[in-house]
Amino acid sequence: MRLDDEEAATSCRLPISNSEIVKLAHGSGGKLSSSLIESVFLPLLGNDVLNKQDDAADIQIGDLKIAITTDSYVVSPIFFPGGDIGSLAVHGTVNDLTMRGAKPLFLAATFIIEEGFPIADLHRVADSFAQACRSSDVSLLAADTKVVGRGAADKIFVTTTGIGIIACDPVPASDRARAGDVIIVSGDLGLHGMAVMASREGLDLETQIRSDSAPLNKLVLPILQMGYIPRCMRDITRGGLATVLNEIAKSSSVGMLIEENAIPVDPQVSAVCELLGLDPLYVACEGRFVAIMDASCSDQFLATMKGFPQGAQARVIGRVVEEAPGRVVLKSTIGGRRILDKLAGDQLPRIC
Amino acid sequence: MRLDDEEAATSCRLPISNSEIVKLAHGSGGKLSSSLIESVFLPLLGNDVLNKQDDAADIQIGDLKIAITTDSYVVSPIFFPGGDIGSLAVHGTVNDLTMRGAKPLFLAATFIIEEGFPIADLHRVADSFAQACRSSDVSLLAADTKVVGRGAADKIFVTTTGIGIIACDPVPASDRARAGDVIIVSGDLGLHGMAVMASREGLDLETQIRSDSAPLNKLVLPILQMGYIPRCMRDITRGGLATVLNEIAKSSSVGMLIEENAIPVDPQVSAVCELLGLDPLYVACEGRFVAIMDASCSDQFLATMKGFPQGAQARVIGRVVEEAPGRVVLKSTIGGRRILDKLAGDQLPRIC
Repeated sequence: MRLDDEEAATSCRLPISNSEIVKLAHGSGGKLSSSLIESVFLPLLGNDVLNKQDDAADIQIGDLKIAITTDSYVVSPIFFPGGDIGSLAVHGTVNDLTMRGAKPLFLAATFIIEEGFPIADLHRVADSFAQACRSSDVSLLAADTKVVGRGAADKIFVTTTGIGIIACDPVPASDRARAGDVIIVSGDLGLHGMAVMASREGLDLETQIRSDSAPLNKLVLPILQMGYIPRCMRDITRGGLATVLNEIAKSSSVGMLIEENAIPVDPQVSAVCELLGLDPLYVACEGRFVAIMDASCSDQFLATMKGFPQGAQARVIGRVVEEAPGRVVLKSTIGGRRILDKLAGDQLPRIC
Repeated sequence: MRLDDEEAATSCRLPISNSEIVKLAHGSGGKLSSSLIESVFLPLLGNDVLNKQDDAADIQIGDLKIAITTDSYVVSPIFFPGGDIGSLAVHGTVNDLTMRGAKPLFLAATFIIEEGFPIADLHRVADSFAQACRSSDVSLLAADTKVVGRGAADKIFVTTTGIGIIACDPVPASDRARAGDVIIVSGDLGLHGMAVMASREGLDLETQIRSDSAPLNKLVLPILQMGYIPRCMRDITRGGLATVLNEIAKSSSVGMLIEENAIPVDPQVSAVCELLGLDPLYVACEGRFVAIMDASCSDQFLATMKGFPQGAQARVIGRVVEEAPGRVVLKSTIGGRRILDKLAGDQLPRIC
């Protein structure tokens, strides 16, 4: 295995021909999602801002630097331990803004509802959305509701767009990682994905696993205000830690060396993953993030983060390196090294 | 019939109980849509901005007055004469911003795609979206793609959020109509709704009707810049002209008197409506708007509008009156008067 084979590392794009159809794995957040975006969307819709594929776009309007992000939420089931599609649709969007160093201010939301959806469930989703707005300090400014016939949608889909004001300079971005930087994760991995999986119809796993779905602005913004500004932050969602690290490595043209035994994974998540044949490094979180930090202040950054309840489990998991740009290498517990690639297929469809 | 029966006019809200289910007509844009929004969403999610239910929210950020709007597009079929779900998703959102006197600048969009959707069709939708962005002078800044299993969505749903800068003062709003104002429509009604209907599976109407889907900013913004600022503008979409007029009448607590024979309707639209038992006053457009204008400058406003190709058919259709606040009265061609209510059921599901 040649770890410095740059050509192989960057050729993960799979072109899609016009005669093909969309597959479930095109929505995985992994390799096939990238190929769909790079083959179909970016050639037609791309521009300097969109091509960066960061969690949120940053633009200058007048004197203000604004961050904008949008996501559709199609999670199934819509209610799961630790959250539901309403709270998830707020947290996910708030977190995408936060990852660009922006203070989330305003949301816009749409609800596509299947005919026959119980009003009681709609009430529950709207209530959860409203509570999440309050706990995340954001206001809903615009909304829309559409109803489609039975079988034309699965219960309810929520789309949330977020707008925030960027308050830090420079703005954290995926292309700013540099060799020598320290890689930090904010907490244990895989709770959201496993909570959703465990509550799916037909699976009776009887675990105590609850989604980690939570707004990250209460943890991240105070630390940014203290002057600790990571080069890059990404929340760990579809495709899991492995996919996020690969995206940063590619955008920044750097390598990464990760210590497997430093990665925090809840024992229950490990157990269920083993049962289902899944790898926790590819499982989505909704309240965890990875930060790439200049080594000169990473100790203070980590210590500060540990002072917050949401950051108590934060830890260093590896380093940015010069070797093998675009590639993430995992040092296993017993000392071996393997390439940690992006998610290839689709472990968990409709996880967010 | 008492036209001044205010209580009856404002009691069109139908409370929805928690034991009910969502019906197709809850997405019509008419009375049942209002009751869904007022019974479920506004009590939980409402605030000073959202409660106004205008086409776009207006907020102050720093020195800037910004307009924000969001809409999901679930039109069926996704391709229809004169447009498709891609162009519609741009035009609809651009028009909502324009109606608040805002210059549309940025879009964010999500695509929820059903497994098995042809890549060739996705390409066509994305291309149409991109072309509509160019012809509407807006940039796509943020995007997201989700894939759901077969049968969990109907082909593709697009959600577009728009951001614009409000350049006029005062800002046109639904609650600003005053007795004496002149009511103007920008063109003939019902083309979009009838084009979509005519292309639905099973209907072989063989008409030449094409959707009027188009961006209104190229027509409206130059007129605003000349200083002709309507008190209120609304694009005529779901629920048609009748529903839009009722919403303005209610928000402004004014009555309206409309001359039936002044309302422009394409003869082919009239013919198909008669065939299908539909009323063109309730059929959606996607490139027409209604403006409520101070009588002192309505002649100049109308003359200016007629100077643009998109406004060539503009005409006065009625007046805002003091009598019967919240109610729209139609003077028929043969001299009778009837109350023109909001859309009650759902004439045309999934029209936008």
